[in-house]
Amino acid sequence: MREAVEKKVLGENDRLAAELRERFRRENILCVNLISSPGSGKTMLLEKTLATFPKDAPVAVLTGDIQTDNDARRLARYGFPVRQIVTGGTCHLDARMIDRHLNEIGFHGPGILFIENVGNLVCPSSYDLGEAAKIVLLSVTEGEDKPLKYPGIFLRASLMLLTKTDLLPHVEFDSALAHENARKIHPDIAYIALSARTGEGFSQWLSWLNALREKITPPVAAAH
Amino acid sequence: MREAVEKKVLGENDRLAAELRERFRRENILCVNLISSPGSGKTMLLEKTLATFPKDAPVAVLTGDIQTDNDARRLARYGFPVRQIVTGGTCHLDARMIDRHLNEIGFHGPGILFIENVGNLVCPSSYDLGEAAKIVLLSVTEGEDKPLKYPGIFLRASLMLLTKTDLLPHVEFDSALAHENARKIHPDIAYIALSARTGEGFSQWLSWLNALREKITPPVAAAH
Repeated sequence: MREAVEKKVLGENDRLAAELRERFRRENILCVNLISSPGSGKTMLLEKTLATFPKDAPVAVLTGDIQTDNDARRLARYGFPVRQIVTGGTCHLDARMIDRHLNEIGFHGPGILFIENVGNLVCPSSYDLGEAAKIVLLSVTEGEDKPLKYPGIFLRASLMLLTKTDLLPHVEFDSALAHENARKIHPDIAYIALSARTGEGFSQWLSWLNALREKITPPVAAAH
Repeated sequence: MREAVEKKVLGENDRLAAELRERFRRENILCVNLISSPGSGKTMLLEKTLATFPKDAPVAVLTGDIQTDNDARRLARYGFPVRQIVTGGTCHLDARMIDRHLNEIGFHGPGILFIENVGNLVCPSSYDLGEAAKIVLLSVTEGEDKPLKYPGIFLRASLMLLTKTDLLPHVEFDSALAHENARKIHPDIAYIALSARTGEGFSQWLSWLNALREKITPPVAAAH
């Protein structure tokens, strides 16, 4: 019975996510969905990413948490529209939350919408938010076997970001093995190792984002 | 509708968990349930803890993961009964899984049963496993605001273990603030900072465990 309900909830979510995806296509919005454990560095990645954009860049962020608006407050300092989605116990964001909060902030394309999911390597992977790409973050303080233990998200993510590489000298972590484990689950997954603190790997990450944007939006700017 | 099903599932779980708790009481088994994000150090804590016990100590471990039996293989090296519970997608352990696997390994008290939950700071907190105490692990590479963002588990845990303190010189982490945030959610939560790598704080952790064991089991050894 529980599985039947899960199926129904996911079915409704998929229908709403398809509508969001069509809207993103129509408005030339690149939407990416960042997923990781709590504390893998999603918010810091976004802070450093927002800091690279011109002040008038068409960029917005929706950030999910069980409780608190700490992340939204951190991210709002960069001057772009940011909205905290407090799930109040729900372990993931869903398409309905994205639709509602997107309407409330009144964000329209062309542009980039970053979604920072609730910190959880399991549940968010099942919920399509209409994004062009899921991005999974794994920090070097976790463990090389995480892709094998949490295959769902590594299978569905287009890109794996290995974060906090500045800590590599202080931990026993084999980056090549972590990458190899991710490729066992998803041979085509893109991979970038970076440190938001030192900036290592950051230009690669911004290039990846740009390439994805060019892929999904027309080469000449559409009417706004 | 979904909430009603959640309620029913949790109701069934609570009934089974109460049976487990009664069994643990009857058999003088101290059961603790370790909960944290993926990569906070649950398995390493257990490895170092098992290493402190005499070879014939009455100790067993049930360890949950979405996929792989990596953790059970790591833990089995210490010679105690260890069973991997592969949840196959389910984001938490439940009382039924504990009951079944406990029967299969044939573990009887008096003794200590460690449960290592699926790596997830959200969902496992709602599922009572009959344990005497939930223990939440937070590593110094995560963030001081995690207790505020994930209040459910900090409210329900008897003990907060701050792990990986050997990394403190290399990260910007304020342990006192993390502790203070946990106390905002749960004023009586016990707190131990430790490093499984260096052994710092380990004697405190073992003392806490012993004190809990003495509290729940009779002072003179019961018949076996």
